[in-house]
Amino acid sequence: MTAARHIDIYDTTLRDGCQAEDIAFTVEDKLRIAERLDDIGIRYIEGGWPGSNPRDEAFFTAAKRLTLKQAQIAAFGSTRRIGVRASEDHNLKMLLQAETPVVTIFGKTWKLHVHEDLHISEMQNFEVIHDSITFLKRHTDKVIFDCEHFFDGFKDDPEFAIECCRVAADAGADVICMCDTNGGRLPEEIAAATDAVRQAVPTPLGIHCHNDSELAVANSLTAVQHGVVQVQGTINGIGERCGNVNLCSVIAILQLKMHYKVMHAAQLRRLREVSHFVWELANQEPNKRQPFVGLSAFAHKGGIHVAAVQKNPQTYEHIDPELVGNRQRVLVSDLSGRSNILYKAQEFGVDVEAVKPAARKVLAEVKELENRGFQFEGAEASFELLMQKGLNGKVRSFRLIGFRVIDAKHEEDKAPYSEATIRIEGPDGSIEHTVADGNGPVNALDRALRKALRKFYPQIDEVELLDYKVRVLGGGEGTSATVRVLIESGDGQDRWGTVGVSPNVIEASWQALVDSIEYKLYKDRKRQRGKRAAAHESTA
Amino acid sequence: MTAARHIDIYDTTLRDGCQAEDIAFTVEDKLRIAERLDDIGIRYIEGGWPGSNPRDEAFFTAAKRLTLKQAQIAAFGSTRRIGVRASEDHNLKMLLQAETPVVTIFGKTWKLHVHEDLHISEMQNFEVIHDSITFLKRHTDKVIFDCEHFFDGFKDDPEFAIECCRVAADAGADVICMCDTNGGRLPEEIAAATDAVRQAVPTPLGIHCHNDSELAVANSLTAVQHGVVQVQGTINGIGERCGNVNLCSVIAILQLKMHYKVMHAAQLRRLREVSHFVWELANQEPNKRQPFVGLSAFAHKGGIHVAAVQKNPQTYEHIDPELVGNRQRVLVSDLSGRSNILYKAQEFGVDVEAVKPAARKVLAEVKELENRGFQFEGAEASFELLMQKGLNGKVRSFRLIGFRVIDAKHEEDKAPYSEATIRIEGPDGSIEHTVADGNGPVNALDRALRKALRKFYPQIDEVELLDYKVRVLGGGEGTSATVRVLIESGDGQDRWGTVGVSPNVIEASWQALVDSIEYKLYKDRKRQRGKRAAAHESTA
Repeated sequence: MTAARHIDIYDTTLRDGCQAEDIAFTVEDKLRIAERLDDIGIRYIEGGWPGSNPRDEAFFTAAKRLTLKQAQIAAFGSTRRIGVRASEDHNLKMLLQAETPVVTIFGKTWKLHVHEDLHISEMQNFEVIHDSITFLKRHTDKVIFDCEHFFDGFKDDPEFAIECCRVAADAGADVICMCDTNGGRLPEEIAAATDAVRQAVPTPLGIHCHNDSELAVANSLTAVQHGVVQVQGTINGIGERCGNVNLCSVIAILQLKMHYKVMHAAQLRRLREVSHFVWELANQEPNKRQPFVGLSAFAHKGGIHVAAVQKNPQTYEHIDPELVGNRQRVLVSDLSGRSNILYKAQEFGVDVEAVKPAARKVLAEVKELENRGFQFEGAEASFELLMQKGLNGKVRSFRLIGFRVIDAKHEEDKAPYSEATIRIEGPDGSIEHTVADGNGPVNALDRALRKALRKFYPQIDEVELLDYKVRVLGGGEGTSATVRVLIESGDGQDRWGTVGVSPNVIEASWQALVDSIEYKLYKDRKRQRGKRAAAHESTA
Repeated sequence: MTAARHIDIYDTTLRDGCQAEDIAFTVEDKLRIAERLDDIGIRYIEGGWPGSNPRDEAFFTAAKRLTLKQAQIAAFGSTRRIGVRASEDHNLKMLLQAETPVVTIFGKTWKLHVHEDLHISEMQNFEVIHDSITFLKRHTDKVIFDCEHFFDGFKDDPEFAIECCRVAADAGADVICMCDTNGGRLPEEIAAATDAVRQAVPTPLGIHCHNDSELAVANSLTAVQHGVVQVQGTINGIGERCGNVNLCSVIAILQLKMHYKVMHAAQLRRLREVSHFVWELANQEPNKRQPFVGLSAFAHKGGIHVAAVQKNPQTYEHIDPELVGNRQRVLVSDLSGRSNILYKAQEFGVDVEAVKPAARKVLAEVKELENRGFQFEGAEASFELLMQKGLNGKVRSFRLIGFRVIDAKHEEDKAPYSEATIRIEGPDGSIEHTVADGNGPVNALDRALRKALRKFYPQIDEVELLDYKVRVLGGGEGTSATVRVLIESGDGQDRWGTVGVSPNVIEASWQALVDSIEYKLYKDRKRQRGKRAAAHESTA
């Protein structure tokens, strides 16, 4: 084993990742993810199974126009059907029509499947593998052969499983990838089977693990230690059942702990960003406890840990979080003292020196708000407004006199009609009184508020509400439970998050809405001041 | 290595588990969890750190009254402070006052911490370990010594780390537990260090891993293979940063795949239930992709997998899910045909024969509803009502004529006032018109509806809304996004879940509320019919 050996990463987020319950990507999502994977130096990107559904076909058509720096797109499919010549097999034809530089096909290597699923002899299975690969190799640059259920097959009958690999090697496969399809095997089983295959064939080997026993990372690393050169998996480990191996962890360990060469250090520093990007497009809450890239991965709660880690991060951190684009976090609510607010201020990019005088007041308010269920992760804009309030008094661009929201339902099978009226006092003291409807009470309120403010602040038309999340806090109180609303807004230049908490979902949404608008106005004023200062300097 | 060797599980969900971001248990929660852990044969239950906070002290007081079948409660703390005699150390005294049969203390075994954190010499560190253990052993039955950062310490200076273990062994520790506190070590490092300690001391060894490299399960199993007899971890792997090792996976693998003896087969079949119980009390969404016990762990989506797994589950399942109390699931939305609805009907315990005639109609409706964002996992009551509707036409106990909800806010810093009026037609054709307020619009609506129905169905007073969840579906549409509301209700006898979906949160909540009430009435009628049938039989 050479320390500087290069390991190729083969990403199947766009294909196996979509087998996960609740996860689906649009064609546009897939293209955007492919570009990000290319950015961080992923070698192969499996795009889908042409011929299995229209969405995957559309992806391959669109993917031809992608300009990738080094990644190669792979099309995935199966060996030819039984009783059909490879050259006449519909699926193989579809694979070639995708016109990708790499084609990956899976075949059977477990006798159980050969007999019970395909109902053919072992000899016929060898022929299926041989024919499919030789046919594809005639028309494609690179062919990867995935041995489905390889390790179960090896456990059942090592001779047969190995012979399947030999057939694939003889037929010209460029990589033979061993799959733990059911995710049931232990590291020592992976090691033994990998050693046996390496002795039997000269072809470069790959590993494809599933996480049904929470061992996919360990199994993949074991295979690499036993000579495998390609690791297949998905970003964040999304995939059918318990998922595929999580490439984020595999990449970080291979490069930082085992000293293989996977990507450039600068690319590795984008790992957290790519992980969150995929969670976002998959419309899933990021797993905060995710190793290396999760929000909590370097978060310190206990007093002892915090004190020690601030003196020397090595005491409670296994790697420098910045190597994977993550950062150390100190959770405010369990700590006391000004230093934690200043730490938090720095985290959010606020001028620490300016905050110092107000830190104690802000701290008291943050603690009280966190007690009530506020959280400022993902709501940095609300936090910054809070700091500004501590420093300069309340930041206010308008005053609410009152609002009223009505939801009225007059037919059993029709949704209610929602209407909001609102009355505000503008910055010049004049009163605006507006009304709007919406497809729900919060939407109506949002529209009425914008209508009232547009006259004073035309730039609020630039604000788009990008995401709206509701989380019920504390169980066991039914419909009177407290809810936390998180709103994410953008104006084409920036994105910001705001938060509101109340037992009343309308009130919680209102708080987050108002913060979103206030932040937009505050941010524009800050930028204007910056421009004026710059202009002043250049004329001085 | 003997195949039938017994492995002790040491659970620290109640102590290390509470270090997780967002997770806190009440004293009552902790007592209930302890009882469940005892039920499934966990050997040790670490309850907390007496003296660190009032909640942990209250737990130990209350725990004295628990009658456990075989589990022993452990109190956790640290070695004595520097410059204080063990017999006069406040923390050690508090540990003894907890009056537990087991006391666990951690001490330093990494020179970095000895020098930089404690600021003492290596010799002084040995004395601290020795004094603390000998003092505790004089007053307690069993003392476990946790070697904090053992594997980092061993990597840095194996001699020193091993000497710490020798000191603990000589002082009379009953178990010496090696901790990968930062979660950074690889399986081969665990193996080498464990071998070295086994050669140096005769004391039984334990392993305590954190999951910062997604290797905690592999590391724990490796330690067992190298002779460790105790595994420390938490249910679901909750814990600081990325968590502790997930005991659910460790237990299942040790017993089912490595053939150690951990618990009785009947206890193992309760693993899924205990996992979900802990998620529930931690007020966390269960991780559906969790190995062995997660909702998706045996869920099949792709057509090929579903067809194969129905013929022979072994083809795509690494273990029989029932061994850990889980079950196979076929996801309905991606499949077609009556057989899937019948499968689903069976899952929900509905009479399959009775459903058959309506299956096609129900299937079409389920597909359409799932397309709109409904999901029936966790909303079995809504699904059963849907089946009944397919069979017998709509189940209706009342007719809505209309409702109106008003949220009015008149002061900037006060929550809005919510009021709901509702008009329904009862089963006898009479009209009820009621009004109620609430601390939010849904709460007001809930109260007005009950007020209107009470006259006709007094039993609805038994219904309690236990949980209310809101999830925003699909991102990118701001406050007009579709939301799904899940309500969990109970009446002392049963618990049931219902669902509603709409872009209007009031409407989605209304749907789930109505289903909850309808299900209660339907269920009571079914029970009445059952009783009458039984009475009829006994008099016949």
